[in-house]
Amino acid sequence: MISWKNFDELSSYKKLEALKGAADIKTALAGEAGGDRVAAYCAPMAAGLVFNYAARPVNDEILAVLGELAGEAQLTEKFAALYNGEVINTGEKRLVLHHLTRGQLGDDVIADGVNKRDFYLTQQKRIAAFVEKVYSGEIANEAGEKFTTVVQIGIGGSDLGPRAMYLALENWARKNGCFNMEARFISNVDPDDASGVLSGIDVAHSIFILVSKSGTTLETLTNESFVKDALKNADLNPARHMIAVTSETSPLAKSSDYLDAFFMDDYIGGRYSSCSAVGGAVLSLAFGPEVFARFLNGMAEQDAMAKNPDLLQNADMLDALIGVYENNVMEWHMTAVLPYSQALSRFPAHLQQLDMESNGKSVNRFGQPISYKTGPVIFGEPGTNGQHSFYQLLHQGTNIIPLQFIGFRHNQMENDVVIEGTTSQQKLSANVAAQIMAFACGKDDDNPNKYFAGGRPSSIIVGDRLTPEVLGALLAHYENKVMFQGFIWNLNSFDQEGVQLGKVLAKKVLARDTDGALKAYSDLLGI
Amino acid sequence: MISWKNFDELSSYKKLEALKGAADIKTALAGEAGGDRVAAYCAPMAAGLVFNYAARPVNDEILAVLGELAGEAQLTEKFAALYNGEVINTGEKRLVLHHLTRGQLGDDVIADGVNKRDFYLTQQKRIAAFVEKVYSGEIANEAGEKFTTVVQIGIGGSDLGPRAMYLALENWARKNGCFNMEARFISNVDPDDASGVLSGIDVAHSIFILVSKSGTTLETLTNESFVKDALKNADLNPARHMIAVTSETSPLAKSSDYLDAFFMDDYIGGRYSSCSAVGGAVLSLAFGPEVFARFLNGMAEQDAMAKNPDLLQNADMLDALIGVYENNVMEWHMTAVLPYSQALSRFPAHLQQLDMESNGKSVNRFGQPISYKTGPVIFGEPGTNGQHSFYQLLHQGTNIIPLQFIGFRHNQMENDVVIEGTTSQQKLSANVAAQIMAFACGKDDDNPNKYFAGGRPSSIIVGDRLTPEVLGALLAHYENKVMFQGFIWNLNSFDQEGVQLGKVLAKKVLARDTDGALKAYSDLLGI
Repeated sequence: MISWKNFDELSSYKKLEALKGAADIKTALAGEAGGDRVAAYCAPMAAGLVFNYAARPVNDEILAVLGELAGEAQLTEKFAALYNGEVINTGEKRLVLHHLTRGQLGDDVIADGVNKRDFYLTQQKRIAAFVEKVYSGEIANEAGEKFTTVVQIGIGGSDLGPRAMYLALENWARKNGCFNMEARFISNVDPDDASGVLSGIDVAHSIFILVSKSGTTLETLTNESFVKDALKNADLNPARHMIAVTSETSPLAKSSDYLDAFFMDDYIGGRYSSCSAVGGAVLSLAFGPEVFARFLNGMAEQDAMAKNPDLLQNADMLDALIGVYENNVMEWHMTAVLPYSQALSRFPAHLQQLDMESNGKSVNRFGQPISYKTGPVIFGEPGTNGQHSFYQLLHQGTNIIPLQFIGFRHNQMENDVVIEGTTSQQKLSANVAAQIMAFACGKDDDNPNKYFAGGRPSSIIVGDRLTPEVLGALLAHYENKVMFQGFIWNLNSFDQEGVQLGKVLAKKVLARDTDGALKAYSDLLGI
Repeated sequence: MISWKNFDELSSYKKLEALKGAADIKTALAGEAGGDRVAAYCAPMAAGLVFNYAARPVNDEILAVLGELAGEAQLTEKFAALYNGEVINTGEKRLVLHHLTRGQLGDDVIADGVNKRDFYLTQQKRIAAFVEKVYSGEIANEAGEKFTTVVQIGIGGSDLGPRAMYLALENWARKNGCFNMEARFISNVDPDDASGVLSGIDVAHSIFILVSKSGTTLETLTNESFVKDALKNADLNPARHMIAVTSETSPLAKSSDYLDAFFMDDYIGGRYSSCSAVGGAVLSLAFGPEVFARFLNGMAEQDAMAKNPDLLQNADMLDALIGVYENNVMEWHMTAVLPYSQALSRFPAHLQQLDMESNGKSVNRFGQPISYKTGPVIFGEPGTNGQHSFYQLLHQGTNIIPLQFIGFRHNQMENDVVIEGTTSQQKLSANVAAQIMAFACGKDDDNPNKYFAGGRPSSIIVGDRLTPEVLGALLAHYENKVMFQGFIWNLNSFDQEGVQLGKVLAKKVLARDTDGALKAYSDLLGI
């Protein structure tokens, strides 16, 4: 029997509070014992990844209490309830089924009269068949020429995740002979976004994917019109250049305006939709359905590991629990995500939505106000670039910000240069190793300007190379981490009521139904 | 006589503390009086911009104390000392002269035996002459063909600022007939960065700019080798495809490896260098020297306004002071920068370096530890995209994060579409107006899940259109804001000792001079 309790009602929460600052990473990582700790504080992940938390502010005692907390908060049971099809999204009264797009973790889930795993697999197969026709030229433009560019029109989860995944695999695909089509993205209602993308592509050889679950997203429908105008101005028939990704009940689903339509449903939130048709269509067109399938396999393998009730073998749960300790006990309310991989340049922006939109809440899953901190602010840029930017504050600023590094032993393009006896890849990896230690252990110096206090925590996920499976495992890790944290904080991580008020007020502005300050701001902006 | 005192030694600091929470923006912006406040709390900026702070947590009493603080901290005098050539960068014993690249605010500054304003102007003229030769074909590739692409090789300030400025003006230049060359950027030591850029350009028609003040930046020299290999592999002579931007004393300055070299100096920090040859070469090649000159004019006009001792007429100083009140009195230690303009997509990433590297310090300008909070964490993405991403936490999360909006009445491309009776530009502007009010005033609701507490502060900078002058004014505003905050916190905002330790440790890793935890991390990363 699952019991949904607030975090501060749990007895392990009190125990955790009593252990505030009990682990001093500066001491723990010093000397030979530091090497042992790095070897020991390591949890396996899918696709050969490891999650190393030696520089996080924990010790065996804290880990034991975190294990208790996992049990008391029933994390494993709640995850099972989710993947077995309970109504976890309480506010919107919906199931939460994104895991089913990549594997079957438990029972068959029947909803809307269908087996949902079959439904998602069917969409993947339909996309794969469509893509093969595009590649073969069976589906082509009106002149019978093949499409060479795919343009995704979507915003939020229909943009950030797919875009980040595309960039993550673009070079890998080039190297591995599966860079089949270039992808571009139009998201912002700023008309310059669509204009800019359209001015940089060959419209006659482009296929557009309109992505909107409801079929009513203002930005997306507006940008669709923009694109249709561009196609018409080039004497092209928009219906021959566009497909839709939407829900079966949306007005877009059966429209003759599109070559075809592929479906998602209400059980997959936008920020969890890269594994659905939202990511599937664009990534399959760009790199081939096999690459997308490999990405899903990596996610599925990581999901399966998230079921493990042994905390020390469950990197997703462990990362979640340590994060809660840092946020609620140590009172560090920000997290920086720092991938040492240029391919992951937009991965932090995706995690920013994933995490902040899921857990940036002040009421529990029953709509009751809570009195503890919830989701942290997430930001980040790739290393080594960040080192030459905001790391100054991370090292010597007046706030402590837990860091999440990601690193790989090999690069994607397998093209490198030796300078001063080492490759660029070695320099990249050496930098991330060095940063972890610099943040954790600091440096004494008689000159306070050159003094580093240390004690600044981090973990690192290390892999061999960023492949589709590895990318999938990474993404699933963070999705599951956010889910577990939501369970601990007793939140509904799957709605987003906080975005509604702005929409309502924007409509008022456009309808000139304003007075006072709102009218004054509207006037200032020339509306 | 200037007196450099710590912030908490100032009597106005105590007065400010006593006014914690004295201004309730939820009340202040309600009703008809809210409209009056929006009209009143507005300061002029250069290039027709206005800085509106009606939704920041201040009232006339707080503003009066902030004015006292400005006087007591001698902000105007310290700015004058800086632009008149005093050694403001105390740690490195250097002048701070980036303002001189765009105008003469005070006395002639003579350093290294030359008039520095003349020196910077000379570099601008040399770049302009070089660009004209590239455009005319006088400087061309070995086959006598014109260059069509310019690639900047640099990291940190040699990358983030110039890249953000390029993206900000790319569409504007397309529309206004001055999109002369496409620019690309190579920054990361990750070899996939250079490989990815090189695989997407026509190397034979590309001119590369190597940017390193010292001529010793590891990432940049490594990437130079990468590019040289690519040129050689294409049977091209690297010396015919590369220029350098560096200091006159660097090993790159007189090398026959380059077509030409353009100079910056030690008095311009990397994060302040978009206005120097670092930004000048790439932006002048991309859009023409006239466009770069217009950008500098916008900066100069804003700089001149920053001299104004009347706080309410000095948007840069006012933004700085309100930010200090939010950070040190209200204890909000993060700031989100949210431009409602896709062209400014990387502007927040540049401000992240500008602000966090300048003021992310724990010692004062004399190297003494301080006991108050300094620079905030900066992050941001363009709206409306952010609305569909992390705004959930901004609206309903458990931390309050002050927001900095930027909006324009008109878009750059002047291409738009009408849906439901309004243009995309109107929708974009309506959204930013709506968000300000939603954040400030919130909404009561019987359902706590749909309740918005409000009281979440923001300001907005509004302009007519994002032109080169407007971009310059925006950038100078933030530079000057950071400078004034550094003065208030008594920091040296112009060094970055916090980046050194990581460099030292990375060298140890590459030399295999490690043990303990550092060796264990190196092993984990396969170095």
